[in-house]
Amino acid sequence: MQIYSGPIERLIEEFTKLPGIGKKTAQRLAFHVINMNISDVEKLSNAILEAKKEIKYCSICCNITDKNPCSICSNKNRDEEVICVVEDPRDVAAMERTKEFKGKYHVLHGVISPMDGVGPDMIKIKELIERLGNQSVKEIILATNPTIEGEATAMYLARLIKPLGIKVTRIAHGLPVGGDLEYADEVTILKALEGRREL
Amino acid sequence: MQIYSGPIERLIEEFTKLPGIGKKTAQRLAFHVINMNISDVEKLSNAILEAKKEIKYCSICCNITDKNPCSICSNKNRDEEVICVVEDPRDVAAMERTKEFKGKYHVLHGVISPMDGVGPDMIKIKELIERLGNQSVKEIILATNPTIEGEATAMYLARLIKPLGIKVTRIAHGLPVGGDLEYADEVTILKALEGRREL
Repeated sequence: MQIYSGPIERLIEEFTKLPGIGKKTAQRLAFHVINMNISDVEKLSNAILEAKKEIKYCSICCNITDKNPCSICSNKNRDEEVICVVEDPRDVAAMERTKEFKGKYHVLHGVISPMDGVGPDMIKIKELIERLGNQSVKEIILATNPTIEGEATAMYLARLIKPLGIKVTRIAHGLPVGGDLEYADEVTILKALEGRREL
Repeated sequence: MQIYSGPIERLIEEFTKLPGIGKKTAQRLAFHVINMNISDVEKLSNAILEAKKEIKYCSICCNITDKNPCSICSNKNRDEEVICVVEDPRDVAAMERTKEFKGKYHVLHGVISPMDGVGPDMIKIKELIERLGNQSVKEIILATNPTIEGEATAMYLARLIKPLGIKVTRIAHGLPVGGDLEYADEVTILKALEGRREL
């Protein structure tokens, strides 16, 4: 049953599609939008569209970026010989917050998860291996999440990369097992970096 | 410190301005937007802009609508002689869900609240009084929320309207005192309608 007029119902419906937004929250957001200044509404609407249109994957590290290569890959002050492999762009942000790691990153955009039908060819592993051929990399730090899939992906990568003669390390289990890198505090991430061990 | 690239940071910032959306939720939403189809993103972006641009106040009942007069005011099958006065468009939706009330509405868009600096001239009371002059109204049902401000607004309206020779009723306190009409269930709202008493 349609209770509000068309444009509102459509907006509520669109909001409901977002993760963690239920019907009541969508309604509250929709009515907030109607009471906002038109200029603020335009800013929100444009920000959504532009984020989608301008954000691409960096051709080197596969992190999300609006310019290619991304600011980390094009930064000459960062150590090209150490690559930290993470699952997700948010994990790069979490690592960067420690302000300790001075190497580069590689974003896998997922983990190997046979249960969800995600094989090694569906995440950015090929791109990582290509990078190892082009650059002189001395160490790969595997910083996938300490979950079953994250561990399995780390194991898979270690077996793939070690034969190339590159040192492969895994961040320590300073992170609570079953947790998520994105939500870890800086100190925990630092401890995990310091305690890394060769596989 | 800027961790993500410009467009993402801007989107996170815009999301954070919405009510009940914190930094983590805004981040999650922003990353969700980036992973959505471009057509879905355009739908969301347009829905926001259109809801703001197309939604106006009905010139009769002051409810939000995309056409003027609104669908309730222009419905000939509804009883013009009974007007239910509510605080908010969401309260109209809550009343409509009972499927019992067949009169018309008047939306005040707020309540008299001296603490927040809201006087009687800042909500749609003038429009209600004008309506009473133009239409032959037999009953005004005051359905403001059972809060202090809602009660005070109801009292104010009763004193203003009773001298005009119109019956003024207040919905019963079937609603939990201190609660909010929008979140009440249908049965409670029905009980409140049935138990209304003359002021």
